[in-house]
Amino acid sequence: MIRLRLDLAYDGTDFSGWAPQPGRRTVADTLMDPLTRVFGAGAVTGLTVAGRTDAGVHATGQVCHVDVADRRWREVSGGDPDRLVRRLARMLPDDVRVYRIQHVPASFDARFSALWRRYEYRVCDAPWGAPPLRRRDTLAWARPLDVAALNAAAAGLVGEHDFAAFCRRRENGSTVRAITAFGWRRDPDGIVVASVTADAFCHSMVRSLVGALLAVGDGRRPVTWPASLLDRRERASEVVVAPPHGLTLVEVGYPADADGFARRAAITRNRRAPAAADAPMH
Amino acid sequence: MIRLRLDLAYDGTDFSGWAPQPGRRTVADTLMDPLTRVFGAGAVTGLTVAGRTDAGVHATGQVCHVDVADRRWREVSGGDPDRLVRRLARMLPDDVRVYRIQHVPASFDARFSALWRRYEYRVCDAPWGAPPLRRRDTLAWARPLDVAALNAAAAGLVGEHDFAAFCRRRENGSTVRAITAFGWRRDPDGIVVASVTADAFCHSMVRSLVGALLAVGDGRRPVTWPASLLDRRERASEVVVAPPHGLTLVEVGYPADADGFARRAAITRNRRAPAAADAPMH
Repeated sequence: MIRLRLDLAYDGTDFSGWAPQPGRRTVADTLMDPLTRVFGAGAVTGLTVAGRTDAGVHATGQVCHVDVADRRWREVSGGDPDRLVRRLARMLPDDVRVYRIQHVPASFDARFSALWRRYEYRVCDAPWGAPPLRRRDTLAWARPLDVAALNAAAAGLVGEHDFAAFCRRRENGSTVRAITAFGWRRDPDGIVVASVTADAFCHSMVRSLVGALLAVGDGRRPVTWPASLLDRRERASEVVVAPPHGLTLVEVGYPADADGFARRAAITRNRRAPAAADAPMH
Repeated sequence: MIRLRLDLAYDGTDFSGWAPQPGRRTVADTLMDPLTRVFGAGAVTGLTVAGRTDAGVHATGQVCHVDVADRRWREVSGGDPDRLVRRLARMLPDDVRVYRIQHVPASFDARFSALWRRYEYRVCDAPWGAPPLRRRDTLAWARPLDVAALNAAAAGLVGEHDFAAFCRRRENGSTVRAITAFGWRRDPDGIVVASVTADAFCHSMVRSLVGALLAVGDGRRPVTWPASLLDRRERASEVVVAPPHGLTLVEVGYPADADGFARRAAITRNRRAPAAADAPMH
């Protein structure tokens, strides 16, 4: 078997998220369909993704891996991964694109080797709504946003914290995460964009953080409010989860080499393991 | 009556173009519907647009005008045009947005007072296709494009010429137009973008120009070929009209004041009048 890293982009609008669900159109199923046709039924295994995006969330820099039989890979690619890129371009629907394929060491794990994920969230605070050609990945926000206030509030969330207040539900493990960067900017076209980087995110964490910050940005909450929620040990019901369509997974960072992949995966698996102290029964 | 200038943007994907057509969803009808509901049946007249975009063509900087009764305008706006902007934002579908409304002199004519129109055409020449979130306004082109060759060929088309070779059909008048700027660039995200400015464009002219230039950009035609077609007095059948979805009307330029509006409208009406010499019978 050899391991392939696939870098892909998708418009999440018409998908029920990444993860396969019976009877739903999901990115994972949509990607597996042509791979199975190319390599043969059962010949593609172990599909693993860096960020399991929710329904409606987009990606411009998603990363996943699969394992395929070495012989089939040589037959299909002729040693040139770009051949498969072009073939998938013809087979996939146009709301999913695989833009890079690389043969990687078996120690590479798209999920556990990742050092960090970066998401962006786009908001248009114009009174007339969101630009029509960007309405699929831009939230229309009827109240003007103060980018300086957004940045001040975001700064209070940077660092390693228990983000329980911002996680929709516990995933049988820790809600401690390390946000390494969290900034907001206003682009030349007027769109306000959040960029947040962390080692990993809990379920719905980015949308909860953005929802809390928007309440600061439009003046309804004080700048100190989001950080004050870090004391909570469970989800803060007063935080409104921002809609999925403003959110895009833009980048995933990995170590530089095979040793790094394995080392990082070992650290991540250890950290994410359910720990009794982190899973109170309520 | 008072005249209102409306600046608007739309995603042309789900429209059969600007101009009203029975049984079709058009931008003009979609815009008139809430205006009629706000001002009353028959109270909004003279809808006139700067660029009558075709089916599938988008706009980020379209301009139109309408006339409404002075008294109704005062009742609706209370002297504040932004009040109507916010009201239309709630009434229009999200693929059309009116982002500015101004009370203008009666000499302003969205079509005839315009000094120039600027269009952009977006092409992605990556082997994997177009970015999913921009696939609605970006053409996927399977062959690599040479931006220097595109610019060299475009330069040969700048100036006042008879663009008959690039017009799908004559509109009962001259096909002489003045292109004042025509440049191509590769954006940081890899997308190749054409920007073309002219006093006005004939029907399907931008898409024909882009179609001709793409044949140069991917090496199938020499750089001198598009300009060589300026000798033709009728449409050049070897020019492939580029698909509509890559095209966006981005900007329309007008004189600075009321005198300028009227002067420009008089010049345009005179130039566009059918001239026997320009309408050969074949």
